Amino acid sequence: MENEYYSQENHGPYSLFELGDFQLECGRTLADCQLAYSCFGELNSEKTNAIVFTVMFSGTNKAMEKYIGKGLALDPEKYFIVVPNQLGSGLSTSPHNAPPPDEGPDFPQISIGDDVRAQHRLLTEKFGVKSIDLVLGWSMGGQQTYEWCVRYPEMVRRAAPIGGTARTTPHDSLYVEVFCEALKSDPAWEHGRYTQPHAVELGLKRLAHVFALMGNCTEFYRQEKWTDLGIASLDGYLSGFWETWFKPMDPNNLLCMASKWKRGDVCAVSGKSLKDTLGSIRAKVFVIAFTQDMFIPLTDCKYEQEMIPGSELRQVPTLWGHFGMLGLAQEDFDLINSILSEALQSPCAA
Amino acid sequence: MENEYYSQENHGPYSLFELGDFQLECGRTLADCQLAYSCFGELNSEKTNAIVFTVMFSGTNKAMEKYIGKGLALDPEKYFIVVPNQLGSGLSTSPHNAPPPDEGPDFPQISIGDDVRAQHRLLTEKFGVKSIDLVLGWSMGGQQTYEWCVRYPEMVRRAAPIGGTARTTPHDSLYVEVFCEALKSDPAWEHGRYTQPHAVELGLKRLAHVFALMGNCTEFYRQEKWTDLGIASLDGYLSGFWETWFKPMDPNNLLCMASKWKRGDVCAVSGKSLKDTLGSIRAKVFVIAFTQDMFIPLTDCKYEQEMIPGSELRQVPTLWGHFGMLGLAQEDFDLINSILSEALQSPCAA
Repeated sequence: MENEYYSQENHGPYSLFELGDFQLECGRTLADCQLAYSCFGELNSEKTNAIVFTVMFSGTNKAMEKYIGKGLALDPEKYFIVVPNQLGSGLSTSPHNAPPPDEGPDFPQISIGDDVRAQHRLLTEKFGVKSIDLVLGWSMGGQQTYEWCVRYPEMVRRAAPIGGTARTTPHDSLYVEVFCEALKSDPAWEHGRYTQPHAVELGLKRLAHVFALMGNCTEFYRQEKWTDLGIASLDGYLSGFWETWFKPMDPNNLLCMASKWKRGDVCAVSGKSLKDTLGSIRAKVFVIAFTQDMFIPLTDCKYEQEMIPGSELRQVPTLWGHFGMLGLAQEDFDLINSILSEALQSPCAA
Repeated sequence: MENEYYSQENHGPYSLFELGDFQLECGRTLADCQLAYSCFGELNSEKTNAIVFTVMFSGTNKAMEKYIGKGLALDPEKYFIVVPNQLGSGLSTSPHNAPPPDEGPDFPQISIGDDVRAQHRLLTEKFGVKSIDLVLGWSMGGQQTYEWCVRYPEMVRRAAPIGGTARTTPHDSLYVEVFCEALKSDPAWEHGRYTQPHAVELGLKRLAHVFALMGNCTEFYRQEKWTDLGIASLDGYLSGFWETWFKPMDPNNLLCMASKWKRGDVCAVSGKSLKDTLGSIRAKVFVIAFTQDMFIPLTDCKYEQEMIPGSELRQVPTLWGHFGMLGLAQEDFDLINSILSEALQSPCAA
């Protein structure tokens, strides 16, 4: 189904890596599977200066690229930085653009492991990367970051999961369930068999409101911080910020990503307990948590961080909560950038 | 519309106080309006040993009565304790039981002020109460408690709003909006014109899930505290606890209460700023906050408490979060009971 939102104009420039017929963990195969990515800087001759910056729910490479630039921690004059989109994200092979028999609601179930295996192929087959200086990502990007550490321990020297967990908690799982329920409550959803790309507008608005409810902290609301964006009212914030973000997107794409999120669990690949799985991580890990995050709370991040040998916990105390990563407050952007600098400069195993 | 849930069997014994044709703040009149209440103990001859225990969203007198008993803070051997139900709660005159032209979705808009004016008439006209030793209430009961303090300062000697605010915050308002949206998303809702009492089952389930998402703290979920109730799984907790609570209720009743909640504001009666309104309170106020409450957070409670002269802040640090008031953990019940004892023993004006 055509959806003009998922375009080079809105999210590019990005490239497509051909995965061919890609075998998924669920047992099905995605024919002619494509992984969308952007990249910055040059790979050195030893092929050891790569950074992998994974992407969150509902986002694309474009959403994270503000953290990449000359003079920033993620400096393309020093590093070769790859930003791989998720499968199902809208730019990679996704429900909205897959041909039959995989289109729309018939798209196969994807896992975080599928994403990371696809990214690993991009890094190794396309670029010949030997080792990675830093894997990072926010929210679902944090899930992919942990998956990288566990699945490819020999490649990942440092990692920075930001507002993300290695294993989805029951509360976070409920959060995903509630916003999916909100999306699917729209009768126009028709179990995913809508025939117009923007038919499910009401469901997307309801989903947006659930994100608003949990996305920032309560103090953000009491202080009416939307005025910092030049928005005058709560209603203006809901419509102009949250609804505007989600409304152009494809519902089946979002549900594909949400399903991955809900099932996220690094123990699936290790076959061990969470303690043993996180305990086996060899990368130097900087766990970055938003102090007032309501759905990936500090306590959940800290709980996992304490199981990772030699890891560090860093907090971002923004009223933006989980969405502090958007860096809409300059001090949040600066703090996250400085933590990433610290991570990149820290010693790590080989 | 008949709904067997709202019965003496389930919620009694309770009595009905005839308010007659009750003039509402919205300008409309509820004909033959009835206020349901329960009471315990005896009024002393000076008519000064009353306690008013107001009721939360979706609850009735029955839900709060576990805090009343011999040897507890709310001891009927010492106090005359009245538990007035909300208008719209299902036992008082409510959308589901009002005759035309006020039935169902045509029920008039009620305010917290209407509730408290009705309760004041019950206390003064029916019982001749002169002064009140303690007004208390949880959640929406906290809203009514603040309203009592501001509206009838000459009567209220002490007050204990528990997990409730004097003015609904923007975030709390969004929370109410999201759970109402969940309820109304069910096509069977039909803008309130459903014709079977339990037609809106799907909407009530969705509302229940939003309550689950915000009702306890995230750590409650990570620790799977539902096992303390003998429930084995998250799904079992959602269905056996939250859905079971809401499913028998009337959607229009819930929406009536939710609308009050959303508009709750003690400044409506004072016509002054929040600072000046709370600053004028003469009662000795114990603000009780649940440390990990996600929708009436400690910060919002503290913000208001600091504006009230001579007030005290007490915290209940339970993983049950907002729903710590249910007292399902014995230590929560004991702590709340002890704070109420402290409040009742504290000196106060007049």
